[in-house]
Order: sequence, then C-alpha cells, then structure tokens
Amino acid sequence: MSTTVGNSPYAESSGSFTRRGPRFTDRIVASPSSEQEWQAEPGRYRLVASLACPWAHRSVIVRRLMGLEDAISLAIVDPLQDDRSWRFSLDEDGRDPVLGYRYLSEAYLARDPENGTENGVSVPAIVEESTGRLVTNDYPQITVDLGIEWAKYQRPGAPMLYPEELREEIDAVNEGVFHDVNNGVYKAGFATKQARYEEAYTALFARLDELDERLADRRYLVGDHITEADIRLFTTLVRFDAVYHGHFKCNRQKLAEFGNLWPYARDLYQTPGFGDTVDFDHVKRHYHQVHTSINPTQIVPLGPEPSVWLEPHRREGLGGTPFGPDGTPPEPLDAPLRPLPPLEG
Amino acid sequence: MSTTVGNSPYAESSGSFTRRGPRFTDRIVASPSSEQEWQAEPGRYRLVASLACPWAHRSVIVRRLMGLEDAISLAIVDPLQDDRSWRFSLDEDGRDPVLGYRYLSEAYLARDPENGTENGVSVPAIVEESTGRLVTNDYPQITVDLGIEWAKYQRPGAPMLYPEELREEIDAVNEGVFHDVNNGVYKAGFATKQARYEEAYTALFARLDELDERLADRRYLVGDHITEADIRLFTTLVRFDAVYHGHFKCNRQKLAEFGNLWPYARDLYQTPGFGDTVDFDHVKRHYHQVHTSINPTQIVPLGPEPSVWLEPHRREGLGGTPFGPDGTPPEPLDAPLRPLPPLEG
Repeated sequence: MSTTVGNSPYAESSGSFTRRGPRFTDRIVASPSSEQEWQAEPGRYRLVASLACPWAHRSVIVRRLMGLEDAISLAIVDPLQDDRSWRFSLDEDGRDPVLGYRYLSEAYLARDPENGTENGVSVPAIVEESTGRLVTNDYPQITVDLGIEWAKYQRPGAPMLYPEELREEIDAVNEGVFHDVNNGVYKAGFATKQARYEEAYTALFARLDELDERLADRRYLVGDHITEADIRLFTTLVRFDAVYHGHFKCNRQKLAEFGNLWPYARDLYQTPGFGDTVDFDHVKRHYHQVHTSINPTQIVPLGPEPSVWLEPHRREGLGGTPFGPDGTPPEPLDAPLRPLPPLEG
Repeated sequence: MSTTVGNSPYAESSGSFTRRGPRFTDRIVASPSSEQEWQAEPGRYRLVASLACPWAHRSVIVRRLMGLEDAISLAIVDPLQDDRSWRFSLDEDGRDPVLGYRYLSEAYLARDPENGTENGVSVPAIVEESTGRLVTNDYPQITVDLGIEWAKYQRPGAPMLYPEELREEIDAVNEGVFHDVNNGVYKAGFATKQARYEEAYTALFARLDELDERLADRRYLVGDHITEADIRLFTTLVRFDAVYHGHFKCNRQKLAEFGNLWPYARDLYQTPGFGDTVDFDHVKRHYHQVHTSINPTQIVPLGPEPSVWLEPHRREGLGGTPFGPDGTPPEPLDAPLRPLPPLEG
C-alpha cells in the first residue's frame, strides 16, 4: 500500500496524513460470478511486492503460509522508488523477467491507460502474467482471498487464517490495529503539525498498551492459532524498532520494552513464514532513503541489532498452536528472498 | 559549545562533522599572573548557559555542586537559536536582565568588535557583568577552574572534582569520552555520508561498551567519588535516549539497554546537582527544532518517558560516595531552573 515518493505527498495543509485507499478492488476467487471476479488459477498471476512495505509484506507471508509459491509467482521490487514509483531495478536489465516491465506503473496503465495511476502506484499488486494487466491492489482483500479462495492449490497443513466463527472478532481487532497501529505510525511520522503528531502518538501507544494486555494470557490475538489479525499486527511490529521508533518518532518506548508484545512478536518471527520473509535491509533503506521530507541526509541507521529477534520467547506455555490442530508449518526458507547489494556511500 | 544554527554549518564536503574549538581561552583564577587571567571574585561574572547544550550543562552542574550560585550569576538562553545564534528571548522584553543584551553575540563583540563572532557564538560563556565583555567560552577549562580556582567561595562540603592524584586518569578517560561519545554523537548525527556516519557509530558504541564494562564493579569512572569524568559523560548520557538515539541515529541500543551505564547514569541523575539541572524540554526542542537539516518537520518527539530516570539504581553496594569522605550534597533545588511555556502547533 506504500505509495510514498520523495517529499511526502501524504501530508495535507492540516498537517495530518491521509492514506489513499486501493483503486482496483477486483477479486481473484474460486468461483467467479461477475466481471469483477477473476478465476483463481495456478500459473496465471504474479504477486508484486516490496519487502520494505508492511502492507505488501502481509501477502508475502500469507503466500508462504498457504504454500502458494508454485501457484502464484513473486516479484520483489527495489526498496527505493523513483519519481515513477516502484521499479524492477533489482532485476537484470532493470526489467521484471516475467512481465518485462521496468515500472510497476506499466501494469496499472495496462489495466487503465487513462487513469490507472491517478491514485498512486502501490504494492502489493497482483498482475495477470499473460496480459500484464493489474488485477487488484486491494491489500486487505488479497490476503483474505489467498487464504480462502485458493484452497484447492494450498499445501497440506495450511492454516485457517480467517475462520468463519472468528471473523467478527478478527475484524474488530483489525479495525483498531489498522487505524492506530498500521496506519497510526504513518500518521505520527508524516505529521507536519505538532498537534497532529501528538494525537497519532497517543492513540498508537494507547492501542499498543491494550494489545500488550490482551496478549498477557493468550498466545495469539484471536482464538488459539495464528489468524489474519496476527499477520496484520506483525508486519508493523517487526518494523517498529528499526524504523517507526526513530524515523517516525514513535518513541515512548521500543517494542523491545513491552512485556508481552515483544515476546509475542518474537514468537511470530521465529515461526516459518514470518521471520524468513523479513528483510531489514529493504525496510531500513526504503524508509530512510525515500522519505527525504523526514530524513534529508538519507543516512540509513546501523541499529538496532536484529539478533534479539531470535531470543527465546517462552510463549508456548500460554497454549494454542501456530497452525491449528491439523496445521503444519511451511518448509523453512533456506535463503533470503532478495538480498540487496551493500549500501554505498 | 553548541554553535549550530539551522542547516548545519558543521558538515564538510567530506561528509564528516568538524567541531570548532573555543575562541576565547582566558581563565578566571584565584591568583592572576598574566593579562589572560582574571581575578575570581563573587558578584563579578555571569555564566551564560543553555540547558539544552551538553557542553554548557557541565558548567551548570559544577556551579551547583560547588555552591557557587551566590558568587556567579546564571543566565539561561532560549533553547532555539535564530540566525544570530543564542538569544535571551525567555527573558522579559527579550533582554538579559543583568547584561541588557538580546543576543549572546553582543558579549562576544564587546570583547572583540572585529572578530568576536568569527568562530561562532557558543555556550557556556562567562561574561563580566560591569563591562558586558566575554571572558571565556573555554568549556573544558571553565569547569576545572570553577572546581579549583574558586575554592574560597565554595560551599562547605563541596567535592574535589579534579584531585591532583587522579588527574592523569581523569584526563585519559575524558579524552576517549570526548572523541567517541560527547563529540561522537554529533559526528554520527551530522554526517552527510553513510561511511562517515558508520565510523562515528562504531567508535561510539565501542567506547560505550568499554565504559559499561568499566562501570561493572566501580560506582564512578575514576576513584571513589564523582569527578570531572563523570560530569562530562553524564551530560551526554542524559541526552542519549531523548535525542541522540533517534535524532542522531545512535540506535544500536538505548542507554536504557546497557547493564551498567544505565544504572550509573540514574545514580548520577538522582544525585543533587545532576537531575535537578536536566530539562528535557530544553533538550528536545533545541535538537529537533534547530537542526532542520536533520529534522525538517521540526516535530518534537513526545517520548521517551522521563520517569524511568527515577527508578532505583542499586549502585550503593559498589562502594564509594558521591562527594568524598568530607563532602556533602548541595541543597536540592525545589523548582526547575527555567521551565518553558508549552509547545505550540
């Protein structure tokens, strides 16, 4: 969902940050019943993601947890956008090897040549490989549909991330997490007025306190297994000390100073599909080098040390299992998804 | 010693930060023997300091510890310089009530009308009240001389901060602390090249690790009591989590994550003369609102919570006493030195 380029286009004259919603909300489903629904079909679609972006990171995790790697291919964009937004400059000749594009915007314009990019160019984006057309950039729907509509192609032991009986509770948790945490850190970081920053900071830490308390006696946010709610919170938490604490001034305390949220985040990090899709290099370079309105020197902080993520979490005693009674973890990844060359300068 | 205004004049084309030395190195002593030595004399001098600035903060602490409040008056400047540098804009009509100046630069120019400000205008500065002339801005000499040359006017029970038998060791500790810590945080924060930042960061944390180890089995840095070495380290440590960790990207870890440095810093903070001269408002507003080359939005972070400074330090068991066998603490201050009006915006 990250659409930021250079000096933030987000902040309005009020000094507050406004996030634009996704523009393309078609769905990919098991049984299409309208023109806005596309057929789930292995080999047909390409997921374009940035490892920097928390909104895109969700879909990378869910694809792994569901074992959809063979069904849906993955393109990783450069963590640094230029003035034409996300680009495939990590690939040979600067082109995505499947789509042939230099810029993700080309898929948006293939879908709608007139207005395809009017609402920005965001990840995650799912593109039809044969036509190069964008299908959807609707990040909250993408993860739900990967979990449900692709059931036929999922691995044995894939978890239920959005089980019917828990949806009401998951939705309620997600709602607060979205406004105060996922988007809250951006509202704090992109505020250009002190009062707007302070409002976002206050709501963020009030919500984190509430979540910390919620997690005191339960291993996961909702029910006894990992759900959509955990994935959505995780992609913000894993970026917290590396970028939001300093760069976005969310500094009442570090994540590592929360009594329950910190072991909870480590528990998830150490679960296959989570930590192995985290790349702090992508994360830190993106935020610190793209947001020149916040960090004009573009220096990328060396800290914090990531090794603390591997410390024992001791959350097993709270009961629950990551993937449910019949679930199993995905195979571990044996290499990072897309390592970056060393930072210059 | 802070001379920064607006977009840092510090960083050179090499991307590294160079600190200018003090321009006026006259001394105030008990028995003057040259034109560069002025007579120590109660009621004659005014110490001009910023509560934001770690270099100036040293002299505010030493004046308190020595009980020189009645002998040497104190002026506190606005934490926000403008393009004419430090100003008395917290005072009625924006003028220092004793010197009558709007800007500290006036004292520099009273001393040297031609070149008084050519090396910048820095605090701490000691000004002769009757003539309004700057005497010295030589911050390392100022604290040493307040401790020794003013003995006749010090309170009973004043500590020995620079005892002869420990000078060699104190000087050696100070040397490493100056380059890697006091000045090191500035070198990291004002670097405009990644490599220069990384050098400063690495030296900083190597030195902090060494100091952390040194403090494992001794209460103070040198000998059994507080010395110049502790004061010089303290004024950087107390600013660490509030400004250097985020604003200057010194984020391998917080001070609060060091096993010995953090209780050591709290021990000092809880000693009269230290914590009661710390004003986080002055500190945070200065760094975040003056350094627009690092923080163009000028938003001042709300965190971290200062209450942690009052947590028990449990360092008494290491032996030693703050003020030596015959020393006593100064009377506690019952009010902050110079509270700021609420932040607007």
